[in-house]
Amino acid sequence: MSDAPKAQNLTWHHGEVSKDAREKAFGHRGATLWLTGFSGSGKSTIARRVERLLIERGCFACVLDGDNVRHGLNGDLGFAPEDRKENVRRVGEVSKLFTEAGAIVLSAFISPYRQDREVIRERVGAAFIEVHVATPLEVCEARDPKGLYKRVRAGEIGQFTGISAPYEEPLDPEIKLLTAGQTVDESAEQVVAYLITQGIIAG
Amino acid sequence: MSDAPKAQNLTWHHGEVSKDAREKAFGHRGATLWLTGFSGSGKSTIARRVERLLIERGCFACVLDGDNVRHGLNGDLGFAPEDRKENVRRVGEVSKLFTEAGAIVLSAFISPYRQDREVIRERVGAAFIEVHVATPLEVCEARDPKGLYKRVRAGEIGQFTGISAPYEEPLDPEIKLLTAGQTVDESAEQVVAYLITQGIIAG
Repeated sequence: MSDAPKAQNLTWHHGEVSKDAREKAFGHRGATLWLTGFSGSGKSTIARRVERLLIERGCFACVLDGDNVRHGLNGDLGFAPEDRKENVRRVGEVSKLFTEAGAIVLSAFISPYRQDREVIRERVGAAFIEVHVATPLEVCEARDPKGLYKRVRAGEIGQFTGISAPYEEPLDPEIKLLTAGQTVDESAEQVVAYLITQGIIAG
Repeated sequence: MSDAPKAQNLTWHHGEVSKDAREKAFGHRGATLWLTGFSGSGKSTIARRVERLLIERGCFACVLDGDNVRHGLNGDLGFAPEDRKENVRRVGEVSKLFTEAGAIVLSAFISPYRQDREVIRERVGAAFIEVHVATPLEVCEARDPKGLYKRVRAGEIGQFTGISAPYEEPLDPEIKLLTAGQTVDESAEQVVAYLITQGIIAG
């Protein structure tokens, strides 16, 4: 165990840790970075790269994505429309819990519907940052990291976002990542730069 | 924003943050402290006091309890037996996510059934620490901070843990807090001392 810094002279309210005291102790604000985009757009990869950069800076950061949510918290949910909606709702609520705990949480989910994302924005409040991983569909399909597009084209999967189900692009995202023209590292640095300009993390 | 420490020389695996790298960066291990006990036993109060002590030590700590879970993540659940079970299951899964993110999460829920708690223990693994807030029922009823026992006795609430529904005490909890004989601060210090002896936080 390293000798972690002690947070001195914090102000406490009613025995609880105030938002300000928590920010002062952690050295950064809590936030939800909500990464939305097609399957294969690079959401999780970019989220994990940003997480690493933030942890290197001493921030409390973590990633929520299908890998750690679908088999656990949302293991009771399938892929029917109402289950997908509930999947996104729960992840939004967990993102809120992490944000209130002072973490910078990177939530990487296709989340194709504008209204579902807006509900989370309202729930999380000002700490919600929508990140559009704007990889064109044809690029995602050419990459096809999980072989899903191939299966869709073979008729093995129905209701696939971008092919047979809608994707509603963010109209005014806080961050738009034009991943076709930049590396994963450049996308990650773009996100970190945004957090600095917003005063969420120190420069 | 304070000048947060930078975590240097971490080892990264496949672009992701390994458990070891995260622990080294944060200066402590992740853990779930699961506080179980009767309504009015002091679970949330003790959890918040421990959270404060941990944050003063520079740890990433947070509390999950009815206040921040029942109206959000579990706002779709009522108080029927199957809903209570699902309430505890989801909180267990969220505790796992916080623990894997490297946080020390204090989850304060009556969680009366041994089997429900054992499921969470299995899911979280070695980082699960059961804390029995062993306040006697008569003390909880005398305190009655939310006026619930009064309402139970008046017949306004059915199925109340300890009165008309069972509470299955932990058989071998990692920590047992005999709150009738000590202050909230003493209980909180007992928890912190345990974390130090286990090497979860630095001494």
